[in-house]
Amino acid sequence: MTAAEAAADLAGGIIRPLFRSGLLVEAKGDASPVTEADRAAERALRAFLTERFPTHGIMGEEYGTERGDAEYLWVLDPIDGTRAFLTGRPLFGTLIGLLHKGQPVLGLIDQPVTRERWIGVAGQPTRFTSPMGGTAACRPCASLATAELSCTSPDIFDAAGTARFDRVRQAARRVTWGGDCYAYGLIALGLVDAVVEGTLKPWDWAALVPVIEGAGGRMTDWQGQALTLHSKGEVIAVGDAALLPEIVSLLS
Amino acid sequence: MTAAEAAADLAGGIIRPLFRSGLLVEAKGDASPVTEADRAAERALRAFLTERFPTHGIMGEEYGTERGDAEYLWVLDPIDGTRAFLTGRPLFGTLIGLLHKGQPVLGLIDQPVTRERWIGVAGQPTRFTSPMGGTAACRPCASLATAELSCTSPDIFDAAGTARFDRVRQAARRVTWGGDCYAYGLIALGLVDAVVEGTLKPWDWAALVPVIEGAGGRMTDWQGQALTLHSKGEVIAVGDAALLPEIVSLLS
Repeated sequence: MTAAEAAADLAGGIIRPLFRSGLLVEAKGDASPVTEADRAAERALRAFLTERFPTHGIMGEEYGTERGDAEYLWVLDPIDGTRAFLTGRPLFGTLIGLLHKGQPVLGLIDQPVTRERWIGVAGQPTRFTSPMGGTAACRPCASLATAELSCTSPDIFDAAGTARFDRVRQAARRVTWGGDCYAYGLIALGLVDAVVEGTLKPWDWAALVPVIEGAGGRMTDWQGQALTLHSKGEVIAVGDAALLPEIVSLLS
Repeated sequence: MTAAEAAADLAGGIIRPLFRSGLLVEAKGDASPVTEADRAAERALRAFLTERFPTHGIMGEEYGTERGDAEYLWVLDPIDGTRAFLTGRPLFGTLIGLLHKGQPVLGLIDQPVTRERWIGVAGQPTRFTSPMGGTAACRPCASLATAELSCTSPDIFDAAGTARFDRVRQAARRVTWGGDCYAYGLIALGLVDAVVEGTLKPWDWAALVPVIEGAGGRMTDWQGQALTLHSKGEVIAVGDAALLPEIVSLLS
């Protein structure tokens, strides 16, 4: 765990001074914003982890996959929530996940500006540190009718996904927009009950699974099955597993 | 100005310890979440301002209007962004505005958890303090095609408003969701170019006008006219006034 924390410190040291600075924004093919901060932080994370764990694989948003068939695979997103980062909202996060034979065994969400950090390790209670308060423990919520639902953007779904998500949204007590990884962190604090999103990549969700599950929640695909590297990127996260059947049924 | 800052300190002292605590949520008739924090802070603000300025009027979200025909009218929203507050996102804000004969002359946005504060006074440059960086100055942006647009929620419009907003959204470079008053603060920092919202109340926008305009931006209704207490609650905020004709045209 120390290594992942040291890696997050390293990324934070690169990202923090660039927050709200006039850095250039460059458009990728898929129109998502990519910044120099993102690239520089991923290069630093890769160099750090490769030196410590030369036999481990690494998968990252900006620089692809190395040793992808290794027993241990680090899955990295230096800035999850680039739109939040670019518009000055301190709700983006550095995501560092570790898969063992495809299973998420370690996850870290780091918010370098507010200096909040969630650490999840399979089989252990999630740890959370923040100068703004909060405790790592999901809350009970047995029905969407009483659930706080969160979603980064209505644009995060493909066309079929939008119609399916709308059924969940209409059944939920309320929906709050925005948040990226931070919204999943809020599930682990018992402040949000469910996040339903589509078109995610492994680096968007791998680090989140141990954080959510170590706080008592569950993360699955839209069929209620465990997420794998072959998943389609349709994700459900809940603080109370009792919500899963209702959400899976509405999405089907 | 000292009085408004002291009032914000007072509200922050009430709100901060309740953030991420297990306070009860109560549903109002309009289904917006109202918390004890909101009410307690508004009571404190009203008592403080009434003692200092007994002849001034006060309008607030929770407790209505007193002396509404006074020359000076304080317009208060102790927790703008109650959904953000309730779900643990530090992007809500305390809004303290002052109207003189219906014109916004002073505005304060305070984020008590991140300890950020925007202060706008008519005719003066906006001031901003934050431990996370940022400078109060809007940035140039002459066309929606290059603009970062922000909006709290797709649910913030009535049915006709949604169709009109969608034209702006499609013309913008990108849209980021969530944020409430914080998104307007980001315009004043030159990080967001435009916010377009509907169904706002005076306490949602009164404090924002001096902040945005003191940083070089503009706030109007959807017709491009100055906001007044009789406005319909349809608001445009831009960092560069050159964006206004394009947005007004798309909304018409």
